[in-house]
Amino acid sequence: MNSADRHKESGLDQVLKTKMPALGIDLGGTKILAALVHDLKLASEPKRIPTPHGAAEILDALVGLIEDFQKDHLIAGVGIATAGIVNIETGQVIGSTGNLPGWEGTKIKKYIEGRIVLPVHVENDANTAAYGEAKAAGFENKTCSITVTLGTGIGGGIVLGGKLYRGAHWAAGEIGHIRIGLDNRRLCTCGLFDCWEAYASGRGFRMTAQEVLSGVSPEHSQLAAIKADELTNEAVVDAATAGDIMAQKIVNTWHEHICSGLAGLAHTLDPDCFFISGGMSKFVDYELIKELLVDRTLPRIGESVEVRPAALGLTAGLIGAGQLVLDELIASART
Amino acid sequence: MNSADRHKESGLDQVLKTKMPALGIDLGGTKILAALVHDLKLASEPKRIPTPHGAAEILDALVGLIEDFQKDHLIAGVGIATAGIVNIETGQVIGSTGNLPGWEGTKIKKYIEGRIVLPVHVENDANTAAYGEAKAAGFENKTCSITVTLGTGIGGGIVLGGKLYRGAHWAAGEIGHIRIGLDNRRLCTCGLFDCWEAYASGRGFRMTAQEVLSGVSPEHSQLAAIKADELTNEAVVDAATAGDIMAQKIVNTWHEHICSGLAGLAHTLDPDCFFISGGMSKFVDYELIKELLVDRTLPRIGESVEVRPAALGLTAGLIGAGQLVLDELIASART
Repeated sequence: MNSADRHKESGLDQVLKTKMPALGIDLGGTKILAALVHDLKLASEPKRIPTPHGAAEILDALVGLIEDFQKDHLIAGVGIATAGIVNIETGQVIGSTGNLPGWEGTKIKKYIEGRIVLPVHVENDANTAAYGEAKAAGFENKTCSITVTLGTGIGGGIVLGGKLYRGAHWAAGEIGHIRIGLDNRRLCTCGLFDCWEAYASGRGFRMTAQEVLSGVSPEHSQLAAIKADELTNEAVVDAATAGDIMAQKIVNTWHEHICSGLAGLAHTLDPDCFFISGGMSKFVDYELIKELLVDRTLPRIGESVEVRPAALGLTAGLIGAGQLVLDELIASART
Repeated sequence: MNSADRHKESGLDQVLKTKMPALGIDLGGTKILAALVHDLKLASEPKRIPTPHGAAEILDALVGLIEDFQKDHLIAGVGIATAGIVNIETGQVIGSTGNLPGWEGTKIKKYIEGRIVLPVHVENDANTAAYGEAKAAGFENKTCSITVTLGTGIGGGIVLGGKLYRGAHWAAGEIGHIRIGLDNRRLCTCGLFDCWEAYASGRGFRMTAQEVLSGVSPEHSQLAAIKADELTNEAVVDAATAGDIMAQKIVNTWHEHICSGLAGLAHTLDPDCFFISGGMSKFVDYELIKELLVDRTLPRIGESVEVRPAALGLTAGLIGAGQLVLDELIASART
């Protein structure tokens, strides 16, 4: 038995017997968030550092964070949630890194396991969030849940029978780029036209607002008095709640847009549940979504599927990453 | 051991040792097709009878067909492919029966197993076709294949890791009703707007042709001389091949429409392969589809997925249904 194996075995023992936590890390474009995770909960205060520029600098920052936590805690393993398509076997980011320029191709797992003697699991951040949400909801034995992250963009993760579904080339769940329009009307940040994300994300909401308000005078909407670049999505939602008809039109159209994508996913995968997470999820009217979904799907499909706000909030990615490592250690101990 | 179990056991023995076939039955809106199936091939000439009107009459016809085959053959089990959403545990059609009015709610498995002492498996026809195609392609251990049946409508079936994926409420793979447009422009036969089927099916192709040719004079297209209700999809494809620019526009637009749905499925499930089957598949330009798919998807996703013509042709549903029964008998013998 080599030292890594020995470490792994003693780690397993600890996980199973003493509830040793994992370290969950959520690597974002502007900040890195890390915390101890156990039993689908944070087991420490999260630490937050700004994301450095450059792949080498990010890797060093990750190692630094791990070493920091190791000073005070025994850790069973490290789960890292990152933007991008990730080959989880090699722990390498192989595409679509969004706002982490230079990150594509980085062999995260290999580098970090070379510096720190702990099992490291690297996974797409929407996947770890989906895993965390499914586990937190007790969906271990359910057929299918899809977590939709409505943020500035749209991310997604699919859990089938309690396991992450990663696709044939690690790219499953890129649901933000489902095409929902025919006319090349809106350009998505990815370079494709009419992606779901271009309509139903925070960015899409804002574009819908600008389209609806174009040419509208202040006597028809209080929003028309606000400069386009100062108009926030929150202001639109507030105006809608206060009865502004143009604002209500924007919010309703946004719900229609959300539903276009959900209906396609429902017809494809017939899930038990959609979990809606991300910064925009607080604006979602779940009753309206469910009503639209029933209207936009074949009988039984929209009626059967649940649509729920996600439970773990902004730490879902981090908690899911940590929990994935713990569950893998436990599963490998049992086989 | 009761007589059904004894029969089952001796059947299993026969399947494993003597290559006993199953009977595959494809129940369509106008005809019922039945043949012996073994090793993913037809093991007899297919028998074809017209589909009677009414659920009781269809059930009697199915029993009659099975008894006909039993006169001359030992059969391990019966696999029935039918339109509609099927609960395979109860063998009951629970929704969306399309052109089989009165069929919804029918307890097919229970009725037939009450009349004939053989294991009966009832399954959605697009699912059995997808199972047949995946097995015929040797995809037993592949992550994901999606079979897209481009006929008058669009059907679909999803095979993950060699197993049919049926969803949480038996309704997965209703991919014809993925929404690909935003404007409620085309009504689908299901009553929803802008379903993929309303554009990329045979019916959708014809509607595109009518839209493109509306107001076009014979000097601009040879197709303009043909009356709208006499214009066949084949005539449009032939004219396109012969260089008619309007016909080429129709055919290209149809390929764009096909690709809209494929791109959404590729972003969602990241499959190894799409198998394209059905009556319209002979008009598909696979090189063009692949090119469009690369253009309409994130890097790696469209590039990675294969798009292939289905191998089993119009008997895919029947062969898949028969093979499902055989594989289930073999699997249950091994556990």
